[in-house]
Amino acid sequence: MTLSLAYLGPIGTHSYAAASLYCNWLAENGQKETMLCAYPSISQTLKVIDRQEVDLAIVPVENSTEGSVTITLDTLWQLKRLQIQQELVLPIQNLLFSWGKSLEALETVYSHPQPLAQCQKWLQDNLTDVQLIPTNSTTEALQRIHTDPTAGAIASPQAAKLYDIPILAEHINDYPDNCTRFWIIGLKENTDGHRLSLAFSVPQNVPGALMNPLAVFARRNLNLSRIESRPTKRSLGEYLFFLDLEGNLAQIAVQEALQELSHYTEETKILGSYDLLEMSEENLATI
Amino acid sequence: MTLSLAYLGPIGTHSYAAASLYCNWLAENGQKETMLCAYPSISQTLKVIDRQEVDLAIVPVENSTEGSVTITLDTLWQLKRLQIQQELVLPIQNLLFSWGKSLEALETVYSHPQPLAQCQKWLQDNLTDVQLIPTNSTTEALQRIHTDPTAGAIASPQAAKLYDIPILAEHINDYPDNCTRFWIIGLKENTDGHRLSLAFSVPQNVPGALMNPLAVFARRNLNLSRIESRPTKRSLGEYLFFLDLEGNLAQIAVQEALQELSHYTEETKILGSYDLLEMSEENLATI
Repeated sequence: MTLSLAYLGPIGTHSYAAASLYCNWLAENGQKETMLCAYPSISQTLKVIDRQEVDLAIVPVENSTEGSVTITLDTLWQLKRLQIQQELVLPIQNLLFSWGKSLEALETVYSHPQPLAQCQKWLQDNLTDVQLIPTNSTTEALQRIHTDPTAGAIASPQAAKLYDIPILAEHINDYPDNCTRFWIIGLKENTDGHRLSLAFSVPQNVPGALMNPLAVFARRNLNLSRIESRPTKRSLGEYLFFLDLEGNLAQIAVQEALQELSHYTEETKILGSYDLLEMSEENLATI
Repeated sequence: MTLSLAYLGPIGTHSYAAASLYCNWLAENGQKETMLCAYPSISQTLKVIDRQEVDLAIVPVENSTEGSVTITLDTLWQLKRLQIQQELVLPIQNLLFSWGKSLEALETVYSHPQPLAQCQKWLQDNLTDVQLIPTNSTTEALQRIHTDPTAGAIASPQAAKLYDIPILAEHINDYPDNCTRFWIIGLKENTDGHRLSLAFSVPQNVPGALMNPLAVFARRNLNLSRIESRPTKRSLGEYLFFLDLEGNLAQIAVQEALQELSHYTEETKILGSYDLLEMSEENLATI
């Protein structure tokens, strides 16, 4: 049976590369047919799961240089049924594309705000006076430069293959180990896996409100690998917390921690119990 | 003597409104002459303080709907001498401007990514099929719509006064209590104030690495009002933490906590000891 997978499109985005990697992994593991479905925003990519219009969605969660993808966290908090099924890590290469012959010829550079931020030092050092113009996707950036020799676009090597625009500069990431973590989202609830992600809101103006929920895990030696805060959006100073911890819902210590956690939180949501997918060398070589 | 104040320009941005509010506060408190200096990015607004080209800078830190302004946190971590002097909170109004006569006439809406995110639900409900185009500032968005009746821009009421473009829709924020916290940055080190902000990096792959530093404050009943994590940018899963706590460097408990904190952190930076400025009704009425 064909499996449908939603991603932030169009073809050529970093999300498209992650979706392709995941399709290859599925094929290696017996799922032969996957249909990629492009959506214009991350929130729409997640909403089609909630409406059961697709089987799975793949969305970026955090980048090693730029941090959390906040729209992903905010949307997962809002759509209560959504569950993380698996995760994968995509190495991110950013390249500068242009029909111009040299860096000196460039007057404008287009890209999505994330790659612009991931390359900001390189841009400042090498293209000091160039105007940076944000776009909705790296693919849109490539479409904007047409055959204009004074314009450049930052995008992935995959995009190069699709759009056949010359590469003007490689290795432009400010930090070489640039990678992005993606979550595969569906509706199935799992209790196994090596990692558990959850989110909760805390009451405001209570001393220790931020510390008490975190201490619940520390007392049981449950290791938190990530703590992220987001505004509740109701008023300044009111936060939600997103935690990743090593463990799963089948462990007694985790069950007890969640039980105690409810004393300190207003609302808690289990985002999912899941594993990191290992990608084969052959698969990684395709991107 | 004239005091120089750097802000993210040009005239008409939300940062400009905050800078104006701060100038009025300074005038009410005896500083008669202030010169506003516009810079094209937040990182440049902060770098001119480090280079002592201006006296103070005002930068956004967090918005109640969209959360942290990550470039502000990242730059404060990098420029070690910079210190928070004061903070103020600006109520944020977003309006839709256009030369078009009705919402139905619009095909594109321009704005900075933050206002676009702050109004995303309204935009989805009222302008479903309109193309959203990010710009470098709300002022640039207003400049882009010229006299085009099919284009709209989201910007502040202050911008309206400056550019004289008709308002097409008011109250378009998804959350009515939308406000942004700004820090006033300089080089002076303070030990008083009601709030202390600090940042630290933690060693990777050590169990409890994220919890131990936080517990240092909890054990002394020092209340944390905000915990924010940022990537170190070296590799995925390595974080910096930014904390706000109620207290100041003159308190013994705070001094002891910072002493103990050094056992669990790689590097710590005090971002500043400061107070929230109260704005007069007359001053708030000017924005």
